[in-house]
Amino acid sequence: MRGLENYPAFGFAGWCLRGIGQVVFQNNPVSGAIILGALFFSSPVYGAISIFGVLVSTATAVVLKADRGMIRDGLFGFNGALVALALIAFTSEDFRHGAVPSVYLTVYIAFAAGMTTVVFASLAALLEPHKVAPLTMPFVLVGWLFLFAVLDLHNIDAGPLAKPVSPSQYDATIQYSLSTWYRGIGNAIGQIFFQDNWVSGYLIVAAIAVNSRISALMALAGANVAAFVAAVYGAPEGAISDGLFGYNAALTAIALGGFFLVLTLPAALYTLFGVVLSTWLWASVAIFLEPIGMPVLTSTFVIVTWLMLIGVRGFSALVPVTPAEAATAETNLAHHRQAARQNPE
Amino acid sequence: MRGLENYPAFGFAGWCLRGIGQVVFQNNPVSGAIILGALFFSSPVYGAISIFGVLVSTATAVVLKADRGMIRDGLFGFNGALVALALIAFTSEDFRHGAVPSVYLTVYIAFAAGMTTVVFASLAALLEPHKVAPLTMPFVLVGWLFLFAVLDLHNIDAGPLAKPVSPSQYDATIQYSLSTWYRGIGNAIGQIFFQDNWVSGYLIVAAIAVNSRISALMALAGANVAAFVAAVYGAPEGAISDGLFGYNAALTAIALGGFFLVLTLPAALYTLFGVVLSTWLWASVAIFLEPIGMPVLTSTFVIVTWLMLIGVRGFSALVPVTPAEAATAETNLAHHRQAARQNPE
Amino acid sequence: MRGLENYPAFGFAGWCLRGIGQVVFQNNPVSGAIILGALFFSSPVYGAISIFGVLVSTATAVVLKADRGMIRDGLFGFNGALVALALIAFTSEDFRHGAVPSVYLTVYIAFAAGMTTVVFASLAALLEPHKVAPLTMPFVLVGWLFLFAVLDLHNIDAGPLAKPVSPSQYDATIQYSLSTWYRGIGNAIGQIFFQDNWVSGYLIVAAIAVNSRISALMALAGANVAAFVAAVYGAPEGAISDGLFGYNAALTAIALGGFFLVLTLPAALYTLFGVVLSTWLWASVAIFLEPIGMPVLTSTFVIVTWLMLIGVRGFSALVPVTPAEAATAETNLAHHRQAARQNPE
Repeated sequence: MRGLENYPAFGFAGWCLRGIGQVVFQNNPVSGAIILGALFFSSPVYGAISIFGVLVSTATAVVLKADRGMIRDGLFGFNGALVALALIAFTSEDFRHGAVPSVYLTVYIAFAAGMTTVVFASLAALLEPHKVAPLTMPFVLVGWLFLFAVLDLHNIDAGPLAKPVSPSQYDATIQYSLSTWYRGIGNAIGQIFFQDNWVSGYLIVAAIAVNSRISALMALAGANVAAFVAAVYGAPEGAISDGLFGYNAALTAIALGGFFLVLTLPAALYTLFGVVLSTWLWASVAIFLEPIGMPVLTSTFVIVTWLMLIGVRGFSALVPVTPAEAATAETNLAHHRQAARQNPE
Repeated sequence: MRGLENYPAFGFAGWCLRGIGQVVFQNNPVSGAIILGALFFSSPVYGAISIFGVLVSTATAVVLKADRGMIRDGLFGFNGALVALALIAFTSEDFRHGAVPSVYLTVYIAFAAGMTTVVFASLAALLEPHKVAPLTMPFVLVGWLFLFAVLDLHNIDAGPLAKPVSPSQYDATIQYSLSTWYRGIGNAIGQIFFQDNWVSGYLIVAAIAVNSRISALMALAGANVAAFVAAVYGAPEGAISDGLFGYNAALTAIALGGFFLVLTLPAALYTLFGVVLSTWLWASVAIFLEPIGMPVLTSTFVIVTWLMLIGVRGFSALVPVTPAEAATAETNLAHHRQAARQNPE
Repeated sequence: MRGLENYPAFGFAGWCLRGIGQVVFQNNPVSGAIILGALFFSSPVYGAISIFGVLVSTATAVVLKADRGMIRDGLFGFNGALVALALIAFTSEDFRHGAVPSVYLTVYIAFAAGMTTVVFASLAALLEPHKVAPLTMPFVLVGWLFLFAVLDLHNIDAGPLAKPVSPSQYDATIQYSLSTWYRGIGNAIGQIFFQDNWVSGYLIVAAIAVNSRISALMALAGANVAAFVAAVYGAPEGAISDGLFGYNAALTAIALGGFFLVLTLPAALYTLFGVVLSTWLWASVAIFLEPIGMPVLTSTFVIVTWLMLIGVRGFSALVPVTPAEAATAETNLAHHRQAARQNPE
């Protein structure tokens, strides 16, 4: 696949596939392709719109002459894909399958995807001194801004945000069952891409495993811990089963569990701490946003991960990896062990 | 006029006139004087309070011994003028003409204007590494804080914020007409200074043109694009005609269209992109603020312009100008052409 | 006491006592011990939970191998103590005395206290270039996040946030009396630690005076100015008497009045300005947070103090002290005078 990317047309396609993979930190076109398959399996509309989003935001970066290396790694693409998915998800009557967008909405999505590229560059500049990545914050910010405005633009038919976006919208009396768990885990991974389809969720785990087994394991572990903590603290069955407590936790687990921190024992405990925080604080952000009817998106993951990484150089028990150096959890660990062998303390 | 400013009294008056001009990026006392005329034409109360605001915030900077060059350029004045206008506008029963403030409210406004000077210095320090200006954010922050508190301070008679501050407060059934357009453009420029007076708006365009024809053109172009985009997306007639979609867009157009970016073709397209975003996102911020009844002020302009400028050094298709170097769109262009002649690529 | 801290067990206890003192900027174990006494005097539950909070957050810093000097000075402890107090205060039916937490809530509080340590390190990194301290922002952020989530975690019995958190919840017809004033001042100091007990408030002033008479004086002056300004602007009696307008103002007075600025005449006036702003803006933040039912905590103090200190290097009328150098208001003044003698201008 690497060889094909040297041909211009294949090259651009490869950058876009990596962009899809980067949503879950996988800089690998094969991972991106499998994820795309999982989206098409869940709904062709979602599959197509994610291609549109990643295409527009990557093309915007090319036109503005952004850093070539970052474009090639798909870093300007993943927020575009996510914002396109979100705008379909929250304007469609049928959240599960999504509706084909009108011309108005398509133009609107294109601007939103383009804006994620600009916001990515700005956040990267702001975070540069702290060696922390923008993560999915461009998507969250642009997503909120564009979702709000929809309500006032009468030529875009906004569905009534039919999807529950806060735990209080679920029935608190339903009992937990086995399916709460296996559907909940799959849905948590699926929700990262707005898919209410637990089979797609497990396909996405497989896509991650192609590039990094540690990250795939972390995604599952994060979703499991989230379901467990939410259940212990009495969260409604529907919110757990729909994966709402878990999608931020799964992302936090991948980010802290090996990708931006070398996976030592202290880092594993630090990751567990972050996963528990992400679980509780999803509910917190949901309640904060309830009066204005906005969804949490992946804001909890970004807030927790930023707060846990920005100050990490002050904690000598942990070994951070800069965004520029972070490749996979496995290579981070290998580099660290090699460095430790060369400079034994 | 430059000569007169060497005399202390005239000097301070000149700094204040430049302060009025700086609201629309014009470091020129004649522009400031014409704008002041436009305000007095619309309402003597608004004219007088803007003088009070610019005076207090500039004097605060003098007392605190801030940078002389920045004081002279009116940079500590424009946020003071705006916050004074806003506090009158949103506490008066009659938004159009404004009410003479009580002693309580006058003291309150003085503190608000003084605070903009402090916030300007802080934002300038925070943004310094990114070569981006605080813009009108000191006004927006202080304005929000001081407008909220008014509701609880019983000795200030807050009007019921009679002015619609969100598109949903307008009748959606009224048809667009010719006056929607020419009033809408004038009002959009007028709204920058809280004036519901389209004639004043065109006077302000003339004031800008005295110092920079490109900026005047950009203000008009920004307001026109905003009206067009809002109409295409089905915004209510009243919101367009009152200039609500346009005032942020006009400011974004001036800022990006030649002032902080050299006006090349890519910059013109980038500005168009920003203007469209400012139009849509005004509605977005309005809806976000609706539960607490707060006005958008110029927050959309600041957010869009910051996000589009902070990361701009990562886009080699664009040529940024630092706040310290930015004089007028015309001189930015001239310097760039001269530099290009001397160092042909 | 210094000698005792060299023994490990006493050392850790000393760091925790200093942590209690640091809430009001007093790096002194005796101050911490007296404050602890004031809390136990008001309610044993609050006394015990503040020890739990400071213990967990300080231990977290030790485990993560944070800077030893900062741990010793109690800087990782004070936010943990505050967040523990807040979580008891806002989940107890009886705000005044607080309820003994369940196991669920205790685990929850431990995570919150631990998170303040992480957030402290991150904010310290973000603010480092501006030589400004995180203040109580870690507590405010973590407090809000953990208070929101409580509403959705059914196994934590959240009281109905019985305590009024906004001036509009008080009866506006009650007349001011002498007790409005002396109770209001005491309660304002008490509210810093969530204590509705004016006697405890005066005990805390005594605790401050042990370490710095200027700071004790500033705390009283700040609370007095706040009560005066609130009364002049017609605030409800109950809000003044409960100390709600004053606790942020008192903290701002200590921070600006000698601790982070050398107490010259311009600094005293600047502090007065900040105290008035903190008084008004408490009402502002309260109204902003009302739709989601959240308390202001010490957010107003942090916002005003940050905005007034971040840009202060741009004002040559004031002499800032970096967080690393700030010891007590008295020593700051002595160092400044000594430096002035050695380098007369």
